[in-house]
Amino acid sequence: MTAPQPQHAHKRLADQRLLRFNTRMSDPFLVEVWRGGVVESRHRGAVAVADAAGKLVLALGDVATPVFPRSAIKALQALPLLEQGAADRFELSAEELALACASHSGEPAHVEGVTRMLAKAGLDAAALECGTHWPISQAATIALARTGTASALHNNCSGKHAGFLCFACALGAAPAGYVQPEHPVQREVHAALESLTGEKLPPERRAVDGCSVPTWAIPLQSLALAFAKFGTGQGFSRERARAAERLRAACTQHPWYVAGTGRFCTEIMQRFGARVFVKTGAEGVYCGALPELGFGIAIKCDDGAGRAAEAVMAQVILRFLPLDDAERAALTRFTQPVLRNWNGIEVGKIKVRM
Amino acid sequence: MTAPQPQHAHKRLADQRLLRFNTRMSDPFLVEVWRGGVVESRHRGAVAVADAAGKLVLALGDVATPVFPRSAIKALQALPLLEQGAADRFELSAEELALACASHSGEPAHVEGVTRMLAKAGLDAAALECGTHWPISQAATIALARTGTASALHNNCSGKHAGFLCFACALGAAPAGYVQPEHPVQREVHAALESLTGEKLPPERRAVDGCSVPTWAIPLQSLALAFAKFGTGQGFSRERARAAERLRAACTQHPWYVAGTGRFCTEIMQRFGARVFVKTGAEGVYCGALPELGFGIAIKCDDGAGRAAEAVMAQVILRFLPLDDAERAALTRFTQPVLRNWNGIEVGKIKVRM
Repeated sequence: MTAPQPQHAHKRLADQRLLRFNTRMSDPFLVEVWRGGVVESRHRGAVAVADAAGKLVLALGDVATPVFPRSAIKALQALPLLEQGAADRFELSAEELALACASHSGEPAHVEGVTRMLAKAGLDAAALECGTHWPISQAATIALARTGTASALHNNCSGKHAGFLCFACALGAAPAGYVQPEHPVQREVHAALESLTGEKLPPERRAVDGCSVPTWAIPLQSLALAFAKFGTGQGFSRERARAAERLRAACTQHPWYVAGTGRFCTEIMQRFGARVFVKTGAEGVYCGALPELGFGIAIKCDDGAGRAAEAVMAQVILRFLPLDDAERAALTRFTQPVLRNWNGIEVGKIKVRM
Repeated sequence: MTAPQPQHAHKRLADQRLLRFNTRMSDPFLVEVWRGGVVESRHRGAVAVADAAGKLVLALGDVATPVFPRSAIKALQALPLLEQGAADRFELSAEELALACASHSGEPAHVEGVTRMLAKAGLDAAALECGTHWPISQAATIALARTGTASALHNNCSGKHAGFLCFACALGAAPAGYVQPEHPVQREVHAALESLTGEKLPPERRAVDGCSVPTWAIPLQSLALAFAKFGTGQGFSRERARAAERLRAACTQHPWYVAGTGRFCTEIMQRFGARVFVKTGAEGVYCGALPELGFGIAIKCDDGAGRAAEAVMAQVILRFLPLDDAERAALTRFTQPVLRNWNGIEVGKIKVRM
């Protein structure tokens, strides 16, 4: 046998890294779902809370194995849009910046906002490469069905995609193919993510997200670091710090545009304003920042359950943020949500165990 | 302090039993959800496969701790409807018997069937106590929104409830309150479940299901036993064996009525006919029977994930049932489903590890 060639050695190393991705084993139980007096289901997961120097102030479970952050990092993916002047060139409003960070519910004003963003860059819905789905809000789906049909504008990621398209136009790049890893937009986003997280993100850490853009596997501890920086601007260039501040202000002042009616991200930021930034991602991911404490937060439920990630995020806020009694009471609705059936009868509750 | 009174002692015992319910700890990993080359999420769970004598032919994880079977035992809950002559008295068709065992998608023919069942007992939708929700099929919701609105008929449990109402009328009991544990219908169902599973089901094992009827916590090994009996009639009275045979025939000959277009229960029973009975339940439960082998099956995913329970059920069928190549290939679509995003791009897959 010949000695392994460098590229084979590199391939082996990549395989070992992938193996490490797949050995995430026994994260602690974080959430119980009770029905009557019995735990019906339970969720394991991991939580990292870090400051902008990367110091972990809380680490539960495996915070070192890379996970896909999915939509939880849309605000980080939007930073290049502001840093390089595209948001100003197209005069994107605060509501539109919030949409660029959103997993929106597809309600009419979300769709109108995304349509406006595209028009500012001289584009329309045909430029979107996110795919079509009906609104994630069932009420919005029912209302839409009565008057029309779904388009790519209703895709929960359409605001992020409109932001990518504005950015592509400002860069002078062809808009088509803006979801591909080789497109200038995704190369800029990739560079920003490597810088923000301190992680090297080679192709073997890449997969395709639900809306067709790349998603990169990143450890929770590094995501928490990135959100600590995002929440404070510490360690950022002046342009990046200013961009992060504008995005935080846009999302926390217009949280309905980040999610929608009745959604966790919206209700939490409506309640706490600039004190809390939170963003959900698919498969049980949540990221956030507590700027006054300088902390970033990253959560992953092992099984991908959003209900558990939400309750854990509420518990992290409850644990760290100085709160008055009314604020604590408001959070209890999310840390111990009551489960009701189709007749409105209380049948159980969710309890966080951390 | 005075000595504990007998009722306190009983209460303590109940508390200890509940504690045991809540100590379900480390079930094995059964299912991985891959995105690209990385495991994004994973699911733990337990599986019991038993024969009609209660002998376990497969036991993975904790099969002894009671779990709520939810809708997975609708066929067992329907047995008294047939045994005591109500189904014959109201001339329920095979499709209507399948609906009595169904978690249907709320498609038009489901709703029409339930309406017919109620009419046969001289009732209408106003008698249903299951609560209203829009069809669990999004396509059915969109179609319905264009022409009308949701009612209790669209509740996925409305067929089971129509069966309960027929049974109540045949018993000469007032239909109102048929969901309550004290109502003659639920007392009969409770007695049947105790007999089928060999479990004592005291009130502390009871909770309220999504459709407001009682749900009883039962170990997977006892659920597998009950479905082995249901699949074979072994150990049953002649009336019960005949009732089970009619329900199996109804479901496996009319599987669209048990679930709906594109659903796992429907597609599996369409493919395998009388050889396989399967039924989903909320919170990651699946039950089934392989009559030719004399086996009953009960699955619970610890985190409540239906996607994992489905894949595990397909794997159990693949493992035990003698299959030709075409049948094996057909099952692979369910044991290793490909995950596609909104653009139809393959982004990952689900893999069963058992």
